[in-house]
Amino acid sequence: MKNKTYAKIENKDKLELLITELPNIDDNEVSIKVINCGICHSDISAIDNAWNLSKYPLVAGHEIIGEVVQIGKNVKNHKVGDIVGLGWHSGYCHDCEYCKNDDFNFCVKTKKTIYSQTGGFAEFVNADSTAVIPIPKGMDLDKIGPLLCGGITVFTPIIEFNIKKNDKVGVIGIGGLGHLAIKFLKAVGCDVTAFSSSPEKKNEILSMGANEVIQSNNDETLKKYNDRFDFIISTVNHKLNWNQYLGCLKPRGRLHMVGATLDTLDVSVFNLMKGRKSISGSPVGSPKNIIKMLEFVNKHNTYPDVEIFSFDSINEAISKLRKNEIRFRAVVKW
Amino acid sequence: MKNKTYAKIENKDKLELLITELPNIDDNEVSIKVINCGICHSDISAIDNAWNLSKYPLVAGHEIIGEVVQIGKNVKNHKVGDIVGLGWHSGYCHDCEYCKNDDFNFCVKTKKTIYSQTGGFAEFVNADSTAVIPIPKGMDLDKIGPLLCGGITVFTPIIEFNIKKNDKVGVIGIGGLGHLAIKFLKAVGCDVTAFSSSPEKKNEILSMGANEVIQSNNDETLKKYNDRFDFIISTVNHKLNWNQYLGCLKPRGRLHMVGATLDTLDVSVFNLMKGRKSISGSPVGSPKNIIKMLEFVNKHNTYPDVEIFSFDSINEAISKLRKNEIRFRAVVKW
Repeated sequence: MKNKTYAKIENKDKLELLITELPNIDDNEVSIKVINCGICHSDISAIDNAWNLSKYPLVAGHEIIGEVVQIGKNVKNHKVGDIVGLGWHSGYCHDCEYCKNDDFNFCVKTKKTIYSQTGGFAEFVNADSTAVIPIPKGMDLDKIGPLLCGGITVFTPIIEFNIKKNDKVGVIGIGGLGHLAIKFLKAVGCDVTAFSSSPEKKNEILSMGANEVIQSNNDETLKKYNDRFDFIISTVNHKLNWNQYLGCLKPRGRLHMVGATLDTLDVSVFNLMKGRKSISGSPVGSPKNIIKMLEFVNKHNTYPDVEIFSFDSINEAISKLRKNEIRFRAVVKW
Repeated sequence: MKNKTYAKIENKDKLELLITELPNIDDNEVSIKVINCGICHSDISAIDNAWNLSKYPLVAGHEIIGEVVQIGKNVKNHKVGDIVGLGWHSGYCHDCEYCKNDDFNFCVKTKKTIYSQTGGFAEFVNADSTAVIPIPKGMDLDKIGPLLCGGITVFTPIIEFNIKKNDKVGVIGIGGLGHLAIKFLKAVGCDVTAFSSSPEKKNEILSMGANEVIQSNNDETLKKYNDRFDFIISTVNHKLNWNQYLGCLKPRGRLHMVGATLDTLDVSVFNLMKGRKSISGSPVGSPKNIIKMLEFVNKHNTYPDVEIFSFDSINEAISKLRKNEIRFRAVVKW
């Protein structure tokens, strides 16, 4: 069996189609034949080596939907023919206190789908069976991929911080993650304000369920929203005036970061102390919460808005994503 | 009735004894004859106008224990002769959503004991009756003053964040606030690590209940404590290597600031995201939690360690506090 793979070769601009052997699987692994794969900003960060973690040739892609084609002899939770998903993590140590508490997301030795192995811009991908997520029957497969990383990244804080009906919530940055945050929060019953730097997206954002759309980088406008929100989730990976966003929170409010960046947060201690406010961040989510999210999306019909490309057009899809032209998540499909 | 008052006069180094008329009280106020008053770092910040809020002559002092000598006609919760306490806040608006929810600490128009009026370095002080706290009978009055500000500042996050038995907790800065945090956390049943920059305090800190004492500003030592704590409370008002302290937290851990400073926190977004960590801050506490704290102290005998000075020696007490020579909280007494 051969594996058609789109890989970034060092010093080349574009991803190139490679044909490689399919790696063997170990006893706890599953081989997935990729049906489609979302393209996440983190893939571009990996392709560009923005986080100094990349080794080339690099096969990105970590929002994978596919069919199980092979299972290791210890695998009990999946069988050949199952439709499954795979996200940022492709394996866990099963030995640390977090794995033992079904809290795999904090495993001290997670395997990463695009850094520890070859990822989903390929015909086949392998993963530890625990990291492989069963997809409920009847769901729209073309639209699920982006949930496996982008979706769970915004779903996890919503459930972990117990965001509830009628909470006033702000979402900063309305791209792949932000548009899902709006849909999820609306389904929870929150009063949702979108903070966007792209006024041309306004009508689309309102149609997703936001109650209003605010210019995210206008200090004068933001001042009107002081003491307003219970929770603000930021999906951007660049600096904004975080002290001003802290001011937009009510007492006990939380500003939560899911946009991965090496930037520092220059917030003032006083601005946290006044009103007992918190700043926090979180990465993706655990398998149990991915399963919970899929049930939620199935029930509330909160799928991402996707643009579908053939795998042959992967470089075009990446180029559009770099130019902020995707509405709102790109998926490549065999 | 006259009011002997120690006030900071602008352009003078020391507090001076003034004799002033006792202000009239309004219908919702109480007059307190001061028995003793703690000296808090915030008093020094006010005396020095470190926060640009001071107007001179300024009467500091906001950790007040005294006897009710006069009540306004609407006051039902106190009577003449009651022993009471008064902390950072001397009144609330009773009209905002926080006041209406018994959450006075976040009132949008709080009166401050040392900024909105004359404070407790005096023979008499007035306050709105809601801000005046009944002191349980039989408690050691000489040692209660510092609980009204320093104590409630560390007690509030312990109960609001549900810190519980066997949690691993770090306390940064073992002065007035930090030594109370150790005592409270020990009484809760936590495993307490003290971070101090004063190695000469080690034995005293251990005797308060800390399990170990670590040099707070030694990066090499701190590295050994990675991924160790559920909760770290910082009482210092200067910069430390906050990114490294974030590393000392377990997943879902919280670094909480109660040391008031205008400094910014230069923490990295990545360090928050890895392990879903939070940074937060909080100011003092509400009357209901002050009452809860006094019951806790009475039950667990977790009084502050105090050095008592006569009011005539107030400048000496302040001078010792400035030199970090107080073990661990100064109280001036008529």
